[in-house]
Amino acid sequence: MASRVAVIGAGPGGLAQLHAFAEAGKNGAELPELVCFEKQSDWGGMWNYTWRTGVDEAGDPVHASMYRHLWSNGPKECLEFADYTFDEHFGKPIPSYPPREVLYDYLLGRARKNDIRKYIQFGTAVRWVSHNAEKNTFNVTVEDLKTGDHRTEEFDYVIVSTGHFSVPNMPDFPGFEQFPGRILHSHDFRDSREFAGQDLLIIGSSYSAEDLALQVKKYGANSVTISYRTAPMGFAWPEGITEVPLLTRLDGNTAHFADGSSRRVDTILLCTGYRHHFPFLENSLRLRTKNVLYPDNLYKGVFWVDNPNLMYLAMQDLYYTFTLFDAQAWYARDYVLGRVNLPSADQMREEIASWRAREEALSSMMEAVEFQADHLRDLLQNLDYPKFDVDMTVEHFRTWLGHKQEDITGYRNRGGFASPVTGTVSPALHTSWWEMLDDSPEAFLGESAGSAK
Amino acid sequence: MASRVAVIGAGPGGLAQLHAFAEAGKNGAELPELVCFEKQSDWGGMWNYTWRTGVDEAGDPVHASMYRHLWSNGPKECLEFADYTFDEHFGKPIPSYPPREVLYDYLLGRARKNDIRKYIQFGTAVRWVSHNAEKNTFNVTVEDLKTGDHRTEEFDYVIVSTGHFSVPNMPDFPGFEQFPGRILHSHDFRDSREFAGQDLLIIGSSYSAEDLALQVKKYGANSVTISYRTAPMGFAWPEGITEVPLLTRLDGNTAHFADGSSRRVDTILLCTGYRHHFPFLENSLRLRTKNVLYPDNLYKGVFWVDNPNLMYLAMQDLYYTFTLFDAQAWYARDYVLGRVNLPSADQMREEIASWRAREEALSSMMEAVEFQADHLRDLLQNLDYPKFDVDMTVEHFRTWLGHKQEDITGYRNRGGFASPVTGTVSPALHTSWWEMLDDSPEAFLGESAGSAK
Repeated sequence: MASRVAVIGAGPGGLAQLHAFAEAGKNGAELPELVCFEKQSDWGGMWNYTWRTGVDEAGDPVHASMYRHLWSNGPKECLEFADYTFDEHFGKPIPSYPPREVLYDYLLGRARKNDIRKYIQFGTAVRWVSHNAEKNTFNVTVEDLKTGDHRTEEFDYVIVSTGHFSVPNMPDFPGFEQFPGRILHSHDFRDSREFAGQDLLIIGSSYSAEDLALQVKKYGANSVTISYRTAPMGFAWPEGITEVPLLTRLDGNTAHFADGSSRRVDTILLCTGYRHHFPFLENSLRLRTKNVLYPDNLYKGVFWVDNPNLMYLAMQDLYYTFTLFDAQAWYARDYVLGRVNLPSADQMREEIASWRAREEALSSMMEAVEFQADHLRDLLQNLDYPKFDVDMTVEHFRTWLGHKQEDITGYRNRGGFASPVTGTVSPALHTSWWEMLDDSPEAFLGESAGSAK
Repeated sequence: MASRVAVIGAGPGGLAQLHAFAEAGKNGAELPELVCFEKQSDWGGMWNYTWRTGVDEAGDPVHASMYRHLWSNGPKECLEFADYTFDEHFGKPIPSYPPREVLYDYLLGRARKNDIRKYIQFGTAVRWVSHNAEKNTFNVTVEDLKTGDHRTEEFDYVIVSTGHFSVPNMPDFPGFEQFPGRILHSHDFRDSREFAGQDLLIIGSSYSAEDLALQVKKYGANSVTISYRTAPMGFAWPEGITEVPLLTRLDGNTAHFADGSSRRVDTILLCTGYRHHFPFLENSLRLRTKNVLYPDNLYKGVFWVDNPNLMYLAMQDLYYTFTLFDAQAWYARDYVLGRVNLPSADQMREEIASWRAREEALSSMMEAVEFQADHLRDLLQNLDYPKFDVDMTVEHFRTWLGHKQEDITGYRNRGGFASPVTGTVSPALHTSWWEMLDDSPEAFLGESAGSAK
């Protein structure tokens, strides 16, 4: 009997996995039986925008943390599929920081190239995965969200690709209980225009805080105060955005900070990160990690050391995204197909420990980028994934960081990034991003490529 | 070995159940082993106000649909515990429509009288309940939300008291995806002041729509448009609240209705009800019902006909609340203690069918009240629950409905309701509810009882 593989989630990770198998199939490999369980009604995972917050139509927590005017916050050249280039998809050079819908279109463009949709069971939530030690198989209990009916199926391999930006980390602060305004997590942030005219308090100092501060100001917030725990982001913020130390308490609408300052705020936006959360996995199978570049217990960042027939995709803190998912998915595929053998558990643990030690010693963002690039190279060297210029992407990240330091509202205007696959150089954005309120694909693509439209 | 009883949820239903057992214990009954699993960190269920929306600190959907300025929307005399009166708790007559914190205090006052907190395992979510047919026991898998660890325990009885006002019913409408404002369900409504100055669209025509329309207007909304599917509520709304037919589509900020009218709105509030949702129960144990007065498959509104060792509390559409939960909990307790026998499954089904048929024929709200009063009487006649005047409560409901028709912003000012237990007559509210923005217990209780304060 052919072996059975369960892929959990049809977002960028799960789609990369199905694509990887499909590519091997086209080259003559005999494929296992693939079943991808997706609780949403369509593919794309996090990239599916929804107006919903809280729980979805089936009573399940909403997966997406996507907001309406999200644009890529890193150059697209650093996530380009080596086997499906931007040139191939768009037929012309496009700027480096596309809005959500454009990247979504690109992501699905590749997904549609191979006939992988047939593997996906939509509206199907995985409720429980347990391990059968006797047979070394996994019992996967799923719920059909339309009927509420459960069933349990047996699999030889399980690949968890449910992401780790869906379950918010929700800290409490003194006075939240009495605060007379809205308190929300970035997970529930949908449209910047909800906050026009308001004075916002943002708590956090990572990518969500950075981007949402800019978003709400761009779309008409009166002021944004960003409260940090350890250090300010320190960008040259536009007028109306300021950084202050940690919130100590709320007194009605008045927020008090660790430096003794205070200000009145209408809304509090928690940009306090996400949690790796796998309530559907039994204890012995469950990854428990903070958001790090090399989680413990995952060999090559993928294989659950205690039982490598359980794999995780995309569980890292991410600079690289789509390409890293591809490399992990290719590796997972090759293990399932018997093309690579894994070393002993002890050897795997040693290798993980060595990466973990190196990560502990990282002291700058560029060192972190280089660390992840090395992780990517380490995967790619063993795979038949098409070659691309990883060194070039590292330099792109360096340039990107410099551009952000120079001009946090202007970095997305910049072109000049070469594709690591085709060499095509991106044009500049045709309009200042800070002034460009329409983020539709038409607006983004229309003039930028010099079309006559 | 003593039998084991799992009670799921420590809200009003679960607390009534533990209290019912404790009362029997005080009277000399030998009690089974009681274990109550509560995912929140404290008791009170829905009545625990939280600033959180969406998912909670453990990544679980937030249970509470409670909002900051909720006041009882029916006279408290209709929910008075017969064995713990308002007189006993407050030591003086109080008005009939208390705000949340006052009712919460009353609820917990009784819970504290017996030593029932010891039965409750807080921060413990029930993940899966399955039935072991061979032993006729239930395997209950729970998760310790602090550690994420699971364990499975065996029980002879399971009593589900998780409520049915936690999981929102979230319909979609054309244009939601592009609406540039906030869309939320009443489940996520917390503080009316978030909407001051706004033009709101409320969808729905039941209690949530009625009460939240008044709430947001009271706390400063500019206008409220209520959209109904079948019929308007038809109250004499204050200026600024209007009812229109069903929403057909949004076009940007402009809402279009079935009568061809349209208006610009800032926020959309879905008061579209809740779902009976038990994802933790295997198919064969799962109640599937709409919000009705007599759900199918529950004998006496409590016992799962296919296996009465599984019980459900408080799963009805509710006029009566705390007292109905008591009657159900007493009945469930007496079954567990072997004090009552249930008829054959066929007889139970017949009796349910007869109630169901009667419910189908109801044609007014007062008929519905009388139906539920009969259900309550049907339970009470077999129990040692202290006597109280059910007929009087029916008349209270009739008076209440009349008051609402007369004055929807003023009905909560009215006193004159006699306690069905003690006969004590409630005073009027000391201030007009519509003008009273402070809903603290001090504000409510202070002057109202004629104290010198």
